[in-house]
Amino acid sequence: MTAPIDFWFSIGSPYTFLAVMRLPGIAEKAGVEVRWRPFNAHALQIEANDVPFADKPLKADYMWRDIERRAAKFGLPVRLPIPYPLPEMEQANRVAVLAAGEGWCPAYAIATYRRWFADREPSGSEPNLSESIKEAGQDPARVLEQANSGAAARALEAATGEAKEIGIFGSPSFVADGELFWGPDRLEDAIEWQHNLDQGNPG
Amino acid sequence: MTAPIDFWFSIGSPYTFLAVMRLPGIAEKAGVEVRWRPFNAHALQIEANDVPFADKPLKADYMWRDIERRAAKFGLPVRLPIPYPLPEMEQANRVAVLAAGEGWCPAYAIATYRRWFADREPSGSEPNLSESIKEAGQDPARVLEQANSGAAARALEAATGEAKEIGIFGSPSFVADGELFWGPDRLEDAIEWQHNLDQGNPG
Repeated sequence: MTAPIDFWFSIGSPYTFLAVMRLPGIAEKAGVEVRWRPFNAHALQIEANDVPFADKPLKADYMWRDIERRAAKFGLPVRLPIPYPLPEMEQANRVAVLAAGEGWCPAYAIATYRRWFADREPSGSEPNLSESIKEAGQDPARVLEQANSGAAARALEAATGEAKEIGIFGSPSFVADGELFWGPDRLEDAIEWQHNLDQGNPG
Repeated sequence: MTAPIDFWFSIGSPYTFLAVMRLPGIAEKAGVEVRWRPFNAHALQIEANDVPFADKPLKADYMWRDIERRAAKFGLPVRLPIPYPLPEMEQANRVAVLAAGEGWCPAYAIATYRRWFADREPSGSEPNLSESIKEAGQDPARVLEQANSGAAARALEAATGEAKEIGIFGSPSFVADGELFWGPDRLEDAIEWQHNLDQGNPG
């Protein structure tokens, strides 16, 4: 056994949708273990003066069309346009950090992204927030109380600091044995990298 | 027969290497015709205040590592670091426009990128410039005289204006029946799109 692959992601990043929805199946098929690591990509992008699409209308339009095409290719339901940016992005990610600590992060992340992209309900806001927590088998009242404690905010901040130390600059990112892969298009390469390590082959 | 796919590219863009080297084989296999359209991506990026990697050292480092990994995956020889940015990028692209008009653009583009990435000779400068023209079966003296005429510069400018009208914002881009695909990672999707059109299937 080697270390699991780290999946660094921020709810609120549109391209992250394609990774969240496809990662579990692809990782399972390859026999690669995944550690879900929510962080605040937006904070790092502001720091690096590199907020994608912010003042780039042409690129933003392209992004949505690109996501729509890729989702169709992968059979993922999407109903554009969807609310963007998310008004309560931090809330969505504080819950994700808590979920990661308790072991129900994939179920929550998948549920909230599906509601955002297929039902047009913004992640981090009601009803998406509570319904996604419920879909992950948890009690919204208990989870939201904890997510709104200072501890959850500090945990998200600590994870973001860790991401920065590793050299992560955007979501989604994958780290396999110290090797960084960025973007949903690198999902397969990252899994393959880890799979080769697990098999004892050079990357 | 449908219209060919348009391959919009600028010599000088590192990621374009992966498209230039792989496009001919993939297009041929799919039976898709390609029109090579050199343009000045840098000019459009300056205009849009969106010069990639310029003041983003972390992302630039990642880009080179990413290209290196992808090149290895595709069996393309690369010896990093290579000279970047290209000091005579415009010269490289004026020759490309001329080559596109005369029908020897793919051979020239492939030769100049190979020399840049495998031999560390900057495209657009000697010896890369003349040797790549020769590899494409042309006489460097004749070509360089024409490429340095005002006509070639105007042709490059006109192509860049056309790219902008279409909504292109970076290199490499592919346009299949008005559908825009951006980046080397969309090469296969673009070819598939055109291939489905040629077969009379919806994209």
